[in-house]
Amino acid sequence: MSTDAVQTANGAGQLFQLLRDGIPRTRAELAKTTGLARSTVAVRVDELMRMGLITPVADAVSTGGRPPSQFAINPAAKVVVAADLGASHATVAIVDLAGTVLAETSASLDIALGPEPVLTWLVDGARELLASVERTVDDVAAMGIGVPGPVEHSTGQPVNPPIMPGWDHFDIPAWIFEHMPVPVLVDNDVNIMALGERGLAWPGVDHLMFVKIATGIGTGIISDGRLQRGAQGIAGDIGHVQVARGADIPCQCGNRGCLEALASGPAIARALRAQGIEAHTGSDVVDLVKRGNIDAIQAVRQAGRDIGEVLTTCVSLMNPSVIAVGGSMARVGEHLIAGVREVVYSRSTPLATEYLSIVQSVAAEHAGVRGASMLAIEHALSPESFTAAFLPV
Amino acid sequence: MSTDAVQTANGAGQLFQLLRDGIPRTRAELAKTTGLARSTVAVRVDELMRMGLITPVADAVSTGGRPPSQFAINPAAKVVVAADLGASHATVAIVDLAGTVLAETSASLDIALGPEPVLTWLVDGARELLASVERTVDDVAAMGIGVPGPVEHSTGQPVNPPIMPGWDHFDIPAWIFEHMPVPVLVDNDVNIMALGERGLAWPGVDHLMFVKIATGIGTGIISDGRLQRGAQGIAGDIGHVQVARGADIPCQCGNRGCLEALASGPAIARALRAQGIEAHTGSDVVDLVKRGNIDAIQAVRQAGRDIGEVLTTCVSLMNPSVIAVGGSMARVGEHLIAGVREVVYSRSTPLATEYLSIVQSVAAEHAGVRGASMLAIEHALSPESFTAAFLPV
Repeated sequence: MSTDAVQTANGAGQLFQLLRDGIPRTRAELAKTTGLARSTVAVRVDELMRMGLITPVADAVSTGGRPPSQFAINPAAKVVVAADLGASHATVAIVDLAGTVLAETSASLDIALGPEPVLTWLVDGARELLASVERTVDDVAAMGIGVPGPVEHSTGQPVNPPIMPGWDHFDIPAWIFEHMPVPVLVDNDVNIMALGERGLAWPGVDHLMFVKIATGIGTGIISDGRLQRGAQGIAGDIGHVQVARGADIPCQCGNRGCLEALASGPAIARALRAQGIEAHTGSDVVDLVKRGNIDAIQAVRQAGRDIGEVLTTCVSLMNPSVIAVGGSMARVGEHLIAGVREVVYSRSTPLATEYLSIVQSVAAEHAGVRGASMLAIEHALSPESFTAAFLPV
Repeated sequence: MSTDAVQTANGAGQLFQLLRDGIPRTRAELAKTTGLARSTVAVRVDELMRMGLITPVADAVSTGGRPPSQFAINPAAKVVVAADLGASHATVAIVDLAGTVLAETSASLDIALGPEPVLTWLVDGARELLASVERTVDDVAAMGIGVPGPVEHSTGQPVNPPIMPGWDHFDIPAWIFEHMPVPVLVDNDVNIMALGERGLAWPGVDHLMFVKIATGIGTGIISDGRLQRGAQGIAGDIGHVQVARGADIPCQCGNRGCLEALASGPAIARALRAQGIEAHTGSDVVDLVKRGNIDAIQAVRQAGRDIGEVLTTCVSLMNPSVIAVGGSMARVGEHLIAGVREVVYSRSTPLATEYLSIVQSVAAEHAGVRGASMLAIEHALSPESFTAAFLPV
């Protein structure tokens, strides 16, 4: 409702959000637009200046001791480190404050190795990338990290993550800070993908679901313009919802008929092997589909229908305007989404689907890094970055 | 994330929320806590004073021309009208600013009669109730109304409401204003029940789902402390999600196997009639259960399981900490909730249910009016009430 719009417009974080568009503004303009006291604005502008995040605009630079009158963000003043840690693959990037990727590297890396080897790779990689673009750790305003499991966002600690042995309640921000002293934001990988997808392709959309289909299946939910994390940070975790077709298929979670046991990359490969087709991974399935293998195409279409069955309930519950399908299995193209659409459009109420788009992710494999950088930039430009909320005490 | 918390704490609406607790505060305290400019606080305090919503605290009343230094809310200064319009039953109440119901009346009233007769009943009822507590329309700060269909909350207009013929895009606030000149807030009835349940029983809970089980089945979703309405205002509309058991049961929506066709009051009555048991309405089912009829108890338990099947997906998706079950069918007591729990707890991941409570609604039949009054009070005490955002132009 409009109360919230007004509250957000008046919020302190908004001051810095305003400056992100690159348009120069005066202190008075910032005070007026945000409703903050001019003294508050002055203090925060000084802090941002000291950190080098904003600069006086050239033709308004101070002369004769008078403070500069206009300020704008300086995208190159600082950088953030953005990392997308998947189940078996990791990417780290250096991104400027405008969201441009300056350098990026990826590797096959098993998250189950545990926090120390994985985070060591991350920090080493970040250092190398920083050197390659001639920046130092002092230039890093914050780090954003996505991990493949539930995260208590306020502390940056994974909580009972099923495929991350050794990570339960591991204090990622504290460990990173010891090796690279920057503020660290951690979130679930699908959540950051939803942020990245929205930022890149749907900036004006307030109700978006990102569906990641890979080794696992999960969603990141943006509702009313905000990421929904739920009471324990596991909102969107639809991989273990039961689907009708799967009653006798066991899932590694201990239940039967879970969506992930039917429609994930490995599950589709397993179903194809049962038909005598050589397929061991989701990637094999993608290759088969791209080569036009009919059985693989049919299996992928059916997986889309299974996912659509669960998404139908999601559509009724959240009433999104966009569902973006991403993750490594999305590379099979329209066959998967055709199955999703088939079920969602036949099973939902007309009102729920009248304005609903179900589309391939635009950000695709960049969604994670993009979203992680947005988490970090958002933090770097928000007032909490000065209260050290995410720094270890 | 904490950015939002800070934004909310600094928001203008927060100034008035602060005063709602009845504790007196100075302008300086309000400015400091909200981060608003003192001049802004002064203007808004004056406006609230002029409207009589806040009063100077007795021992700090102005003397010798100096403005009073401390202010607190005056719960009796104004009242709101709260209305809960159901499919076949309507309630209207006069509520003070602290949420106390001063007078209330109910009637059997078919929403399908269309807007003019229903809203005429509402306005006439409100006038009579106002007279009975010796207040006038001038004392009414705002009106909150819940209706049994999707609502575009920003305009207060129902949008394609399936059981409200004649109401599509009817401008409820404008019509009411013509007959009773007060600002009007309209929302879906289950949404206001969620607000009412939270306000009455779970004030500290940020992730709550209210499930209404009556002639229809729907949910109101509070996530991250905010009501989730979705892109078209139909979030939570789970009545037409398909459940496994119902493949051959037709629903009036045109599909088959919808939750509402299996587990609503009329659906349970229909199933019992097919067994030769005299039951025509949900109310008959409730009576049978209360008399210990085994078949009715089993049918209600099964309806609970069907609802649980859909709620399992909701739990995975939203990760709530409380699911409150209300609506007229909730009067059957624990049998229904036992069925819900049975399925949700056996089908969800341990992480999703570790801290999840599935409980009978505490607000029960008062949830709607309570929530509608909260909508109205929230608006009356927010800055937008001075910008006439909800008044017809």
